[in-house]
Amino acid sequence: MSPSESVAISIDLGGTRYRVAAVSTDGRVLARLTGRSAAEYEPSAVIDDLVAAVKRIQAELSASHFVGLGVAAPGPIDEEARIVLVAPNFPRWKDVPLAAELERQLELPAYLGNDANLAALGEFRHGAGRGVHHMVYLTVSTGIGGGVIVDGRLLLGSRGAAGEAGHMQIAADGPRCNCGNHGCLEAFAAGSGLARRALAAIEEGAETTLRAIGNTVTAVDIGEAAAKGDALALDLVESAGRALGVGVRNLIHIFDPSVVVIGGGVSQMGALLWDPMRAIVASDPYVAFRGSARIEPAALHDDSGLVGAAVMVFEPEVAGLQPRVRTA
Amino acid sequence: MSPSESVAISIDLGGTRYRVAAVSTDGRVLARLTGRSAAEYEPSAVIDDLVAAVKRIQAELSASHFVGLGVAAPGPIDEEARIVLVAPNFPRWKDVPLAAELERQLELPAYLGNDANLAALGEFRHGAGRGVHHMVYLTVSTGIGGGVIVDGRLLLGSRGAAGEAGHMQIAADGPRCNCGNHGCLEAFAAGSGLARRALAAIEEGAETTLRAIGNTVTAVDIGEAAAKGDALALDLVESAGRALGVGVRNLIHIFDPSVVVIGGGVSQMGALLWDPMRAIVASDPYVAFRGSARIEPAALHDDSGLVGAAVMVFEPEVAGLQPRVRTA
Repeated sequence: MSPSESVAISIDLGGTRYRVAAVSTDGRVLARLTGRSAAEYEPSAVIDDLVAAVKRIQAELSASHFVGLGVAAPGPIDEEARIVLVAPNFPRWKDVPLAAELERQLELPAYLGNDANLAALGEFRHGAGRGVHHMVYLTVSTGIGGGVIVDGRLLLGSRGAAGEAGHMQIAADGPRCNCGNHGCLEAFAAGSGLARRALAAIEEGAETTLRAIGNTVTAVDIGEAAAKGDALALDLVESAGRALGVGVRNLIHIFDPSVVVIGGGVSQMGALLWDPMRAIVASDPYVAFRGSARIEPAALHDDSGLVGAAVMVFEPEVAGLQPRVRTA
Repeated sequence: MSPSESVAISIDLGGTRYRVAAVSTDGRVLARLTGRSAAEYEPSAVIDDLVAAVKRIQAELSASHFVGLGVAAPGPIDEEARIVLVAPNFPRWKDVPLAAELERQLELPAYLGNDANLAALGEFRHGAGRGVHHMVYLTVSTGIGGGVIVDGRLLLGSRGAAGEAGHMQIAADGPRCNCGNHGCLEAFAAGSGLARRALAAIEEGAETTLRAIGNTVTAVDIGEAAAKGDALALDLVESAGRALGVGVRNLIHIFDPSVVVIGGGVSQMGALLWDPMRAIVASDPYVAFRGSARIEPAALHDDSGLVGAAVMVFEPEVAGLQPRVRTA
C-alpha cells in the first residue's frame, strides 16, 4: 500500500453484528473489524462503539488518506437527510441521524445507504457487474433485497426506496410473507420463507429428515437436506429457484439489464436452486428473442455491501447522492 | 402561433392506422393527419405515404421552424441504430431503417422510440407526470406496455427494451398469454386477455349477455356489459383491476415513483376497474408506510405517444438518446 493511499471507511449494520472496514479505491478491503449486534443497544451506545472501531482502523492504517465514511443500513432510510427511519432488527432505532452523528464525531464526510442498494453498487464497480451500464442485483438471505443500476447510476427512486424486489408478488395465493401479503418473492425464496414453508409441511405430516431438527430449522438445514436427497427439501429449493426465476424474468422485462447478479446466503445452494431459476428465465420467449441477460453469482460474497459503501464515498453521484464537502 | 414557432413532427405507427402530427414545444398538437394501416403494405410504400403526409403538414404550417421528426413504433426497435426490428402487427416489417430513411427524404433529424416509452415521455413532460422525477406509465390496451422515467430520464435499458411491464408474471397458473407464458399482467388485464377469458368462460357455459356477441367479443363489450351489471363481465373487470393493482404495487416496490400513470383504452373502464386496482395497492403495508405513490389516469389520452415523440425530438437526452446534428 502506498503511503498516501485514499481509503474509505465502510460500516455495515447487519442484523446480527456490525462490521467496520477500510476499503481502497479499487475495492480491496484493507482492514476490518466485527462488532456486537446493534439490535440490543440504544443507538447512542452503538454509535460510540462504531466511533471507537473506526478510530482503531484509522490508527492501524495511519499512513492512509481517509476520504470519508459510508454506512450500509437495513430497512427504510432517508439517504438525503442521512437518517435511519426504522431498522427492522433494531427495535430501539427510530429516526436516528446516524451519518450526521458519525460525521460530527469522526470529522469525515459521511453517507448513508440501503444495504441491498450498496451491495448492488459494490458488485457494479468491483464485482460481477463490472463494465456494464445496466445491472440488477438481488440478495437472497433471511429476506430478499434488491438494487438496480440504471445508466451507470444507482436507482434510488423518489424516496430512496427503489429496488425492493423481494416484495414483488408473483402469486396471489402463494405463501404468507413477513410483510403481511401473500406470494411475495421473499415468501417463496428467502431463508425465512423457506424455513416457514418447511415447518408448515412438517406440521402437515411430510416425511422429511428435517423433522428431527424441529422448530429451529433454517435455510442452511434445508439446503443440506436437499443436497442429501430429502424430497421435501428438494421440493422447497426447486420451488424457491422457480420463484427466483420468475422474479429475475420480470426484472429483465422491466429493466433490460446486461447482467443480473444474485448474492446472499441462500444463493449459495448451487445447482439445485440455480438450474430451475435459469430454466424459467430461458423459457421466456421475449427474453430469448432479445438475448437473455447474463445471470451471475455475486463476486464479492459477504463484502458486496462493505465495498459498495466505499463506492458511495468515492463516487457519491454514482450512488445517486450529492458529494459532501469535507468537514475537517 | 408565432411565425417562427419551433415545431416537431410526430409519427405514431399504430396497429390499425398511422398518425402524423405537428407538436409545439409546450406539447400542443398543432396539426394532425390520420393515414391507412401500415400492416398491409410494404415498408417502402408506407414510408412514401409518411413522407407525403409530413410534407402536407409542413405546407400547412409553413411559417414554423421544423426541428426534427420523432417516430413512435410498436414492438422491438433499436433506438440507437433507429431500426424497427420486428413490428408485431406488420408482418412484412423486419429490420427497417425507418428513421434514417425519413431523415434522408425529409432532411430533418429523425429519432425512433418505442410507443409505450414515448407515451410515458409525453405524460412526463406534458401530462399526468409533470413536475416529478420518477414516474411509471402503463398503457392498458390490446396489450399492456410500459415506460419508466428514472431521475428525469426515460429508462431504456441495455438494449432499449426496458419497461415491458405487460409480461410481468403475477401468477404461474394464470391464464395463457399471447407470449406463450401464463399469468402475465397482460393475460389478465389487457383487452386481448379480457376477450380471451370471456370466450373461455362462455365456452364453459357461463350465463352472460356477452354470449350473444359471440367470437368477436371485445374489451369494450365487456366494459359495457359490466356497467350494466353482467356478472361475468363484472368478474372479469374486477379481476383485471386486481391484476393491475398487483402490477402497480410491484412497480412501486421496484421504482419508488412519485406517480404511476395509467393510460390506454381499457383504463377508461372507470371505477369498476380502478377501485379494485387502488384497493390492492393501498392494502400493501410497505407502500402504505412510505406514503403511496399517486395513481393517475393519463392526461393526454390518445395523444400521449404523439406528444412524447415530439419530446424526444426537442429533448433527445431526456429520451435517453444522443442529439442528432441537423442534416440540412
